[in-house]
Amino acid sequence: MASASTSTTSPSWHPPSAAGKRAASAARWDPRGWRRISNRSIFGSVSAPGPSSGVAATSVGWETLDRYGIARPACVITASLDEAIRFLERAAGRVVVLKAVTDEHKLRLGLVMTNLRTAEQLSGAWRDLASRSALPFLLQEQVEAGPEVIVGARHDPSFGAVVLLGLGGRFADALARREIRLAPVAPTEADRMVVALLGEPLPRLSDILVKVAQLIADRPNLQELDLNPVILSPSGPCAVDLRAVDGPITPGEDDAPGARQAIRRMLKPRSVAIVGASANLVKPGGRALRYLRQSAPDLPVHAVNPRREMIEGVQTVGQIAELPFGIDVAIVALPASNVVPTLEALHERGIASAIVFASGFAEVGNDAGEADVRAAGRRLGIRVCGVNSNGVLGDVPLTFSQAGEKGWQAGSVSFVSQSGALSGSLLMQSWAIGLGTARSICVGNQTDLEISDYLDFLADDAATRTVGVFLEGVRDGRRLARSMARVTESGKGLVVLRAGASAVSSLAARSHTGVLAGSAEIYRQVISQAGGSIAEDLPELVGMCQALDWQPHAASRRVAIISTSGGAGSLLADMVDQRGLLLPELEPEVQAELRNVLPPFAPTRNPLDTTAAITYEPELLGRMAEPVLASKEVDLLLIAISTLTGRQAETIAGDMVRLASRSSKPIVIAWSVPESAVGPAVAMLRQSRIPVFDSFALAASAASALSPGS
Amino acid sequence: MASASTSTTSPSWHPPSAAGKRAASAARWDPRGWRRISNRSIFGSVSAPGPSSGVAATSVGWETLDRYGIARPACVITASLDEAIRFLERAAGRVVVLKAVTDEHKLRLGLVMTNLRTAEQLSGAWRDLASRSALPFLLQEQVEAGPEVIVGARHDPSFGAVVLLGLGGRFADALARREIRLAPVAPTEADRMVVALLGEPLPRLSDILVKVAQLIADRPNLQELDLNPVILSPSGPCAVDLRAVDGPITPGEDDAPGARQAIRRMLKPRSVAIVGASANLVKPGGRALRYLRQSAPDLPVHAVNPRREMIEGVQTVGQIAELPFGIDVAIVALPASNVVPTLEALHERGIASAIVFASGFAEVGNDAGEADVRAAGRRLGIRVCGVNSNGVLGDVPLTFSQAGEKGWQAGSVSFVSQSGALSGSLLMQSWAIGLGTARSICVGNQTDLEISDYLDFLADDAATRTVGVFLEGVRDGRRLARSMARVTESGKGLVVLRAGASAVSSLAARSHTGVLAGSAEIYRQVISQAGGSIAEDLPELVGMCQALDWQPHAASRRVAIISTSGGAGSLLADMVDQRGLLLPELEPEVQAELRNVLPPFAPTRNPLDTTAAITYEPELLGRMAEPVLASKEVDLLLIAISTLTGRQAETIAGDMVRLASRSSKPIVIAWSVPESAVGPAVAMLRQSRIPVFDSFALAASAASALSPGS
Repeated sequence: MASASTSTTSPSWHPPSAAGKRAASAARWDPRGWRRISNRSIFGSVSAPGPSSGVAATSVGWETLDRYGIARPACVITASLDEAIRFLERAAGRVVVLKAVTDEHKLRLGLVMTNLRTAEQLSGAWRDLASRSALPFLLQEQVEAGPEVIVGARHDPSFGAVVLLGLGGRFADALARREIRLAPVAPTEADRMVVALLGEPLPRLSDILVKVAQLIADRPNLQELDLNPVILSPSGPCAVDLRAVDGPITPGEDDAPGARQAIRRMLKPRSVAIVGASANLVKPGGRALRYLRQSAPDLPVHAVNPRREMIEGVQTVGQIAELPFGIDVAIVALPASNVVPTLEALHERGIASAIVFASGFAEVGNDAGEADVRAAGRRLGIRVCGVNSNGVLGDVPLTFSQAGEKGWQAGSVSFVSQSGALSGSLLMQSWAIGLGTARSICVGNQTDLEISDYLDFLADDAATRTVGVFLEGVRDGRRLARSMARVTESGKGLVVLRAGASAVSSLAARSHTGVLAGSAEIYRQVISQAGGSIAEDLPELVGMCQALDWQPHAASRRVAIISTSGGAGSLLADMVDQRGLLLPELEPEVQAELRNVLPPFAPTRNPLDTTAAITYEPELLGRMAEPVLASKEVDLLLIAISTLTGRQAETIAGDMVRLASRSSKPIVIAWSVPESAVGPAVAMLRQSRIPVFDSFALAASAASALSPGS
Repeated sequence: MASASTSTTSPSWHPPSAAGKRAASAARWDPRGWRRISNRSIFGSVSAPGPSSGVAATSVGWETLDRYGIARPACVITASLDEAIRFLERAAGRVVVLKAVTDEHKLRLGLVMTNLRTAEQLSGAWRDLASRSALPFLLQEQVEAGPEVIVGARHDPSFGAVVLLGLGGRFADALARREIRLAPVAPTEADRMVVALLGEPLPRLSDILVKVAQLIADRPNLQELDLNPVILSPSGPCAVDLRAVDGPITPGEDDAPGARQAIRRMLKPRSVAIVGASANLVKPGGRALRYLRQSAPDLPVHAVNPRREMIEGVQTVGQIAELPFGIDVAIVALPASNVVPTLEALHERGIASAIVFASGFAEVGNDAGEADVRAAGRRLGIRVCGVNSNGVLGDVPLTFSQAGEKGWQAGSVSFVSQSGALSGSLLMQSWAIGLGTARSICVGNQTDLEISDYLDFLADDAATRTVGVFLEGVRDGRRLARSMARVTESGKGLVVLRAGASAVSSLAARSHTGVLAGSAEIYRQVISQAGGSIAEDLPELVGMCQALDWQPHAASRRVAIISTSGGAGSLLADMVDQRGLLLPELEPEVQAELRNVLPPFAPTRNPLDTTAAITYEPELLGRMAEPVLASKEVDLLLIAISTLTGRQAETIAGDMVRLASRSSKPIVIAWSVPESAVGPAVAMLRQSRIPVFDSFALAASAASALSPGS
């Protein structure tokens, strides 16, 4: 019984009459194919050139799916119509589908013939397809219709094997929803991917994710694998199309030893050499020496300069060979071409840590020069910070950044930054809100030591309580994930701001969009999974660090809001909600206590409003905060103050300082007028390590950073 | 031929054997029904109680769809199996589906039997269904499978008839993607909805949207209509389930006359009465009088106070009846209960504009008191600002807000705010960044005059160049849309910050989520369509107003970035991209000019980087900006400066001022260190109306506000 004669739930196939052929031909460029099988990678990149892919032979084929127990329809690839008919007969009444073997948009090009039940229908379809596409063809048992998803995997250059679950079906491109994880994927994590994407658990789909993750992890030469679509048919998920791309194996790198000791020498040096020391303060070697002498006049410093005898009160030597043995760290303030010979000379004097200021390497396309420095360091056993770093600020400044000169505010936040300029901005923004710094490290090009090495050090650094990172990218994403987790597991706060998702936005770079955007998602996922908070801008990075550094962490994501104006409370409630925090109802006992302090008409529901009574009675805020902090329903208190200033503000600040000292729950304050207008209250609060922001959004972000992952 | 015997592309129905009955029973609570037909409104709210709905009789039924030409399958509702079998026979070989008539989750409850081809199958299904659900049943021709969408419409309390397009199918709840528009919907707008949701045009789906929008607009008593799902079958979109809820007709309100004149009297008064004037500066009537006398000592002011003779140098009268005739506006600074008698007395003296400070009305549940004030105003012909307003600041302050006392910075930005406290914050934040104000209006409860009235006034107000709005909600959303469009059509900038999307976040208010979230989407869509920019926080509202007030508007969304550090440029590029701005490649001639000024190794691609050369040569930024501003490829210049301060900063600022004075393209600057650290450069730039932000995100938002809608 030909499907064309009855109404069924999938597109009908018509025998290839002349009219049918015209229709099929017209359908070639019809953008409304009902299911899109694209030749684009599901990670968004255009197919890589190279080994043959798709249903054609690669290291992964249909039989591979069978070995991993991934359901797929029975199929055969054949150039013989007779064999095809035998396949149909063996299918015992099931409908089959005939496809061309190509990575093109088969369905959109009219190269997929569905609902074939009889030998006559199959023969007609075969002749039609053969007139438009080369043999062999793929014959498959047709899978019952259902929602479609995409399961994919690839070897990411930074993160290694990753697995993806995305929406499939006709509108997949427009929906662009997907979940990415590092492989292998535990069953519980696969469940989380499914629920995050589809809103409900589907154990058999989770199972496919686990298996695909295993498959890619097992095959270092498998660059990309796409099962697109996987049909969630009534009888279970089934992979009906397969595309695989082989690629080269990227060898893993062995970490060079001694990173921790080298970084210790940079941050807590007992002696320093400056190669390229200068009396000219425009030059990095001049500034670094000046800043170091100003901050640490007693630290032994050795300056190398062939032309002068005394700079900044330091007796120079003419060449490295004249340095004494046993110096902890050398600053190399010489042009790029001098770096390798300098490292060799330092090695002769037993120096094993170097901070290299020179730029002109990979950041301007000089990859060879950078590789030479790296190789020299490895060969000589010298660990290098940089190249293209403006230095580090630890116990002493070893930097030519102006931050080395400013009034340093000591504290327990450490910054690691891939941008020297932005590490300066982070310090100045921190100090402007009273947040002190432990260490500031500009990693430069990460020629040798990379962000992960510094994070490993900071995880165990007694001076560091909170770590803020400005990240663009790393060579080894898996190591980064481990190092970030080490920071949070040691009880320290971690906040990461990542840039670089959008060379994207350059029209010129659009061809790279997919890969970059894909990486951006992996970075976000990895940061969250390591227990870090994600900031979107510098003030948010600093604000989140401040909250984590100053306040206890919250036990849950349930917060209370007290505002001094309904509008402020409403705005802050929106922001709290956007960040996945909860505003629970307070228990009746707490509401009864609030009833006693609030004016009779005022509601006692969270978010709470002092009403205008606060302008006459500034103590009201403290009286409300006391029972709210004692509530079992909430673990963090957010306070939104609008225009109160001067004496009223000081009363409120005093009450908050008193309450905070007795509470184990964090308090974050938003004050929506400029700090200068509020008066001394802001300084009072900061003195007691209570964060105050002039933006509701920053306050909500800080509260989110203080709360456990959603 | 029973469908169960072949593999088809939709769930099979099995004859009701004992095993089958058990399976059907088990399926009742199986959360994996393959298609969800929910009894929740597609706007997210729980079904309203009230008139019967669904396929049962309401004002809208299947035949209504026929009248509007909306495709739907042939169907019959019958309690007779014989009639059902005749329907099957008439279907001439097509498959039919049998459903219970209920608003419950039919498919999840096993109340949908599909793929019925023969009278025998139909009889079996009928008996099975009858054992579990009441007659009559719905019999439908089965529609071929395809992607599913939801088309809906409702009468929103603020916006009237709106129409919605959302994703349907099994995972619709998790995907939660939808487009909402005010009805009626033009065909081009319907096309935009389809492309926004699905990424491609589908003219026949657009056609259904236009028709459904017409249908809801035609029926003021139709509260909600859901076509869920509309199947995008190979033969075209087809509505296979229908749910309609009737409701009361909300009568339209006639606008009371004279709003414009009344607002003119409040903002540009020639004489003022203060009822409840006081010598006590804690009292609103005391503060308002003080601020007014301080700012406008020559303006005729009449103070009403029964107990004192002279306050702030103003001779008081004991009662309103002693006031002279012809006073422009009265401030009513008395408790709630006195407001109506006061309005009556003011009417006797010919006063037609009143600003009412009193709170204690609808905001604390006293709806009746508020209605009384409203009715009194209408009856007496007095237009009221408030109740619960802290006043307005126009040519003179008529307010008890502390902003009335501060050093007023005059300018051309006007704020309209639903929160008195936040209007104070907006002024203080504006003045802190050198942005002057024209008018500040606190609308209070909008008992009479509402935001739309003030926007209509400001659209024609010569003193106002830019309008910033803090919005929670309005009674008449359509009027708001028209008033916002009037502002932008008069060439003025418009920025709106809306709060109130998330009573949501209160666990207690969760039942209202859908309605509120739905409204939030409509507000966003309406603001954008009126040409307004949407801000997410107060500093963003102020920053966007500053950019619109100070800089020319951009001709396109194509921007160039020049940064003084790669990290800053990369971060800003991400933010620009997130806001839908474009970073095009610059033309070869411009790149050649850049080649001449940049160091040899520096790339000439957008986003541009000065490289570290800027620290030695601060003129470089100006030299780069000049050809970039002349580029035909970009219409806005964003500059990201990291740590440059002092003299270098002044050089850069001077160059920017010079270039801006000669360019018709807007310039926005992000300086990622605190203003206090930058030095005089910031003031130089603001003096020349060039916006400077210490956050990259604010700068990107300002650039977006300056650019035409994407």
